[in-house]
Amino acid sequence: MNYYAAPVRDLRFVLEEMLAHRSLALPGFEEASPDLVEAVLEEAAKLASDVWGPLNSVGDQLGAKRHTDGSVTTPEGFAAAYHAYVEGGWNGIGVSEALGGQNLPEVVASSVQEMLHGANMALGLCPMLTAGAIEALAHHGSEALKTVYLPKLVEGTWTGTMNLTESQAGSDLSKVRTKAVPEGDHYRISGQKIYITWGEHDAAENIIHLVLARKPDAPEGNKGISLFLVPKFLVNEDGSLGERNDVTCASIEHKLGIHGSPTCTLNFGENDGAIGYLVGEEGRGLNHMFTMMNEARHKVGIQGIGVAERACQHAFAYAQERTQGRSPKSRGGSECAIRDHLDVRRMLLSMRARTDALRALALYCAGQLDLARHGENEAERQTAQACADVLIPIVKSFSTDQAVDIASMGVQVHGGMGYVEETGAAQLLRDARIAPIYEGTNGIQALDLAGRKLQRDGGAALSALIEDVLQTADLLRAAPSLVALGNTLAAGADDLRAAMAIVLEQGSDPESGPDAVQAYATPFLNLAGHVLCAWQMGLAALKASKAIEDGNDEPFYATKLCSANFAISQWLPVGRAQRAVIEAGMQCLSDFDTTV
Amino acid sequence: MNYYAAPVRDLRFVLEEMLAHRSLALPGFEEASPDLVEAVLEEAAKLASDVWGPLNSVGDQLGAKRHTDGSVTTPEGFAAAYHAYVEGGWNGIGVSEALGGQNLPEVVASSVQEMLHGANMALGLCPMLTAGAIEALAHHGSEALKTVYLPKLVEGTWTGTMNLTESQAGSDLSKVRTKAVPEGDHYRISGQKIYITWGEHDAAENIIHLVLARKPDAPEGNKGISLFLVPKFLVNEDGSLGERNDVTCASIEHKLGIHGSPTCTLNFGENDGAIGYLVGEEGRGLNHMFTMMNEARHKVGIQGIGVAERACQHAFAYAQERTQGRSPKSRGGSECAIRDHLDVRRMLLSMRARTDALRALALYCAGQLDLARHGENEAERQTAQACADVLIPIVKSFSTDQAVDIASMGVQVHGGMGYVEETGAAQLLRDARIAPIYEGTNGIQALDLAGRKLQRDGGAALSALIEDVLQTADLLRAAPSLVALGNTLAAGADDLRAAMAIVLEQGSDPESGPDAVQAYATPFLNLAGHVLCAWQMGLAALKASKAIEDGNDEPFYATKLCSANFAISQWLPVGRAQRAVIEAGMQCLSDFDTTV
Repeated sequence: MNYYAAPVRDLRFVLEEMLAHRSLALPGFEEASPDLVEAVLEEAAKLASDVWGPLNSVGDQLGAKRHTDGSVTTPEGFAAAYHAYVEGGWNGIGVSEALGGQNLPEVVASSVQEMLHGANMALGLCPMLTAGAIEALAHHGSEALKTVYLPKLVEGTWTGTMNLTESQAGSDLSKVRTKAVPEGDHYRISGQKIYITWGEHDAAENIIHLVLARKPDAPEGNKGISLFLVPKFLVNEDGSLGERNDVTCASIEHKLGIHGSPTCTLNFGENDGAIGYLVGEEGRGLNHMFTMMNEARHKVGIQGIGVAERACQHAFAYAQERTQGRSPKSRGGSECAIRDHLDVRRMLLSMRARTDALRALALYCAGQLDLARHGENEAERQTAQACADVLIPIVKSFSTDQAVDIASMGVQVHGGMGYVEETGAAQLLRDARIAPIYEGTNGIQALDLAGRKLQRDGGAALSALIEDVLQTADLLRAAPSLVALGNTLAAGADDLRAAMAIVLEQGSDPESGPDAVQAYATPFLNLAGHVLCAWQMGLAALKASKAIEDGNDEPFYATKLCSANFAISQWLPVGRAQRAVIEAGMQCLSDFDTTV
Repeated sequence: MNYYAAPVRDLRFVLEEMLAHRSLALPGFEEASPDLVEAVLEEAAKLASDVWGPLNSVGDQLGAKRHTDGSVTTPEGFAAAYHAYVEGGWNGIGVSEALGGQNLPEVVASSVQEMLHGANMALGLCPMLTAGAIEALAHHGSEALKTVYLPKLVEGTWTGTMNLTESQAGSDLSKVRTKAVPEGDHYRISGQKIYITWGEHDAAENIIHLVLARKPDAPEGNKGISLFLVPKFLVNEDGSLGERNDVTCASIEHKLGIHGSPTCTLNFGENDGAIGYLVGEEGRGLNHMFTMMNEARHKVGIQGIGVAERACQHAFAYAQERTQGRSPKSRGGSECAIRDHLDVRRMLLSMRARTDALRALALYCAGQLDLARHGENEAERQTAQACADVLIPIVKSFSTDQAVDIASMGVQVHGGMGYVEETGAAQLLRDARIAPIYEGTNGIQALDLAGRKLQRDGGAALSALIEDVLQTADLLRAAPSLVALGNTLAAGADDLRAAMAIVLEQGSDPESGPDAVQAYATPFLNLAGHVLCAWQMGLAALKASKAIEDGNDEPFYATKLCSANFAISQWLPVGRAQRAVIEAGMQCLSDFDTTV
C-alpha cells in the first residue's frame, strides 16, 4: 500500500473555490486560464504519481552513494525521473517568460511542488535548490552571468545549490570563513561548506554552486560576506562545458531520512582555488541570499505538506485494509476495518484536517506572493508582500512541525506495522524530520516572525490578517449550522491579538526586548499557525456548505466540512492554549540554570 | 557527546523527598533501608552509565543479526553487558525473596529500570520481557513449572518472551490461531507468532516463551485461548538442558529503531510440534497474560522516561558546547552557547520539565503498586490497586507519547547535527517511537482508561486522585510565591473533573456509549496525563521551595522550581485545551467518511 496519488481534487478545491483563481486575473497571467491550470495539475499528477512516487522507497533503501573519486550516484531511477521532469518542462513553470519559463502563478507552481514532494521529497529537493539559485541569479546576477547560466538552470539541465553553512557557521552565518581572492574577472574560492543538498550528483550535466564567502580584506561579520557563483564545470565562451572546477565532494552525510538526496561536504579550492564569479554587490551576500531564502522557506513548508499528504494516504489505506476488533453493537457489532473505530478515526481526521488546513494557508500565501509581484498598483503589491512576509515563517515552521506530527501519527495508525521499515510509514517520519531544521530552523523562523516581521510594522500586517479572520468568523456565525465554529474562530483571533500585544510591547523594550522576543517566539508562531489555519478551514467550511446547499452531493464537500469542523473545534483549542503560555511570562526561562 | 549519566540525584529527589520513602515503611520491606536504596541506585548507575550506556549506539549501528540456521546474534558487547547485569543480581531486585529475588520495592526497581532503559533501551527490553514471564508464571504456573523455570528466570540465566501477536491478531487477540494439541502431560504447539521481542538471541542459555494458543476443541474468541510455556531447550529432570524444542526464528524485523533488540517471527511446530506446558487454567490465557501486561505497561512508560532523560542530557550537552550567535546586549552581547538563547532554553526546559514530571508520576504509580501488594490492610491495598489501575494506562501512553516528542525536540536542539545519525540524537527518536505502539497501543491504553477503568467504578479512583491534586493546589496557594501555580493546577483539576463527567455520562449510554468512549479516550487520557504530571510538579515545587527556605542553596532546588513552574504554567495549559476538545463533542468523528 506504499503508493501516492496526487491530490488534484483537493488542490483544485483550494485554487478554484477558496482562492477563486484570483491569481489568474492578475496582469501578466493572461495566458493562464482555469483550463490550462487544470491540465497542468493533471499532467503534474501523472509525473508525481507514476514516475516519482514509486521511487520513494527505492531512494530510501538505496540512498545516494559517494565513490572514492568524489563522484556521487543517486539511487537507481532518480536520474531518469529527474530527466523526465526536465523534459516535461516542469522546472520553469513558475519562472517568467523573460527568463525562459512558463510564467505560471506561484499558486500553481506551489501546487505542482506539493505533488512532487509528496511523491518523492528526496528527489524534490534537487529542483527546489535550483529554484533558489535561479531566484538569486535573476535578481542579483550580472547580465553576463545570467546569459550563460540562467537558461540552463531554468531548463533544469543544470542544477543549483546553496552553499551557506560551515561547521562553525550554521544559524549564525556571520561566522562564514570561506575565502574569495580576486583574480582578474573572477575570484579563487577556498574553504569547506557542509550540508550542501544535492551538492554533487549524476542527474545533471553541470551543478551551479552559489557560495557565501569573504574577500581577504573584508570586514568581519555579516557585512564582509559576498555571494559567488561557482560552477562544477567551467563554461566555455560558446556555452559548452570546459574544465572541472576545483570543487570536490569530500563526503556525504549518513542521515535519518531523505536518503535519496545527497547531503554533501564540499571542499572548494584544495588545489588552485575554485573559480567563482561575484553575484550582486560585494558585502551584500547575505542580503542576496535572503532574497531566495524567503521563497525557499515557503517551499519547505510546501514540502512538509506534501509528506503529510502522503502520510494521510498511507494511513487511510492501511486503516481501510486492516481488520481488527468489532464495531459497537449500535453500529452492527461485526468485524470491522480499524477506521471504523472512532479512536482510529480521530487520528485519521486529525491528519486529514491538518493537512487540508496547512495546504490552504500555504496556497493563500502563494497567492499573496503572486499579488506582490503582479498586483495592479504599488500599494496593493506592498500590502501583499507584507502579508506574505508574515505568513512565510508560519508556513515554513508550522507546516513542517505539523508534518512531523502527522507522519508520526501515521506510524501510530499502522500499529506494529508502522515500526517496520518495509511498510514505508516510518520513512515518511524520517524524511519529514529534516524540514523543521533546514532553511533556517523553526526557532529562527519564529524569531523572524516575532522579531523583525512583527516589530517593524508594529504588527500592522498581522493585524490585517486578524481582521480577515474575524470577517470569516462573522460569516460563519451568519450560517445557522456554523455558528459554533464562528465563535471558536473569533475567540482564536482574540487570543492572537492579545498575544501579539504582549510580544509587541515586551519585545520593543530596549533592555529586555530581545530576550522577550526569544522567549515568546515559538509559542507565538504556534498560536498564529493554529488561528490562521483554522481561518482557512472556516473559509473551506463556507465553500463546502454552500456547495451542499446548492444541491451538490459530491461526498467531497461533506468530508471537507468534517475536516473544517475538526480543525476549528478540536485542533484550534490546542493552539489557543499558547496564549496562556505567553501570558505566563518568561521568568522561568530566564531563571533556568541549564548547567545543573 | 553521546553519553549517558544515570540521573541518581533526580531519582533520589523523587524517592526520598517527594515519596518520602513511604514504600520502605511497608510490611515486608523491613530490610530495605534508605542507605541500602541509595547504594542500590549508585551501583545500578554504574552499570547503566559505564557498561550499558556506551553500547547504545553500537547496538543501533550493528543491530541484531539472524543467520541462515535461524540463530540470532546480538550486537557486539550486548551478551557480555547482559551477563554483567545477571551477575550483579539485578534481574531479581524487584522479585520477592520467596522466588529468589532481592525483594526491593517497585519504586526502587522502577528507578533502576529507568536507568537501564535510558542507558540502552534495546538491551533493556530483554529483562523487561523476562519480568513479564516471571510474573505470569509466579501467579499462574503450577508448582512443578515454577520449580523448574522460576529460579533461572529470576537469576536471568534464562530469559522470557511474550508470544501474543499473530499477523491477523494484534490489538484484537481473540483472533489468535496458534494451536495446542494435548499429548500426555504436555501439548504440541504449532503456529506462527510475530513481533516477539528477544524471541531468539545469544545472550542466555535458554529462552522461555509464554505463548497464547488454542486447543483444537476450544471455543472461538477470547474464551478459547490458553497460555502455554514453551522452552527453547527442553529441560531434563535434573534441570540440565535437553533437546532443542520445535520453535525456530523465521526472520527478524527491519525496524525504525531499537536495532539491538531482535524482533522475531517465531515458527512453532514446523516439525513434530513444539512441546508446551499449560500455564494456569484452560481458556483463561488472556486473563493470565493481562496479569503481566499491566506491569509491563508501567515498565514501557518507564522506558519512555529513560529515553527522554537521555535525550535531555544529549541536548543539554550540545547546547552548552555549541557556540552560535550572541547574547542580547542586556546580557553582555558576546558570543554565546546556544543554551543562552531563550528560544533554545525553552526547548531545554520543556524537555527537562516534562521528563521530571513523567518520572515523578511513574514513581508515584510504582509506590501505589507497592502499597497494593504490601499495604497494612485489605482496604488500603484495594484503594492503592484501583489507583494504580487508573494510573498505569496514563503512565504508559502519556510517558511514551511525550518521550517521542522530547526526543524529537532533542533532535531540533541539535539543528543540522541532529539529523545526522552519527550524533546519536536521531537514534533516540527512532528508539522512542516504538513505545507508543507495543504492549497495547496508546489508543488501546486510552480506551482502557476511559472505558473499563473509569466506567467500572464510576470514576471513583480518578476522583480520589483529583482530590489529591486539589489538595496540592491548596498547599501551593498557601505559599506566597506559588499562588499562581496553585490556581492553574486547580483549574486543571476542574477541567479533568468536567471532562470525566462527560466521558462517564456519554460513555454509559447503552447505545452510543462504546462510540463515545472511543471518541473521547485519547483527549481524555491526554488531559489526565497533563493534570497529574502538573500535580506531581506542584509537589516538587513545594519540596524544592521548602528546601530553599530552609537555607539549602544547592542549585538543584532552584532548577526543580523552574522545572515545576514551566510544567504548570507553560505545559499544563496545552493539556487543559483537551477539555474543549471533549466538549466539542464527537459528531465530526461519526460523520467523517474515510472513504472519500
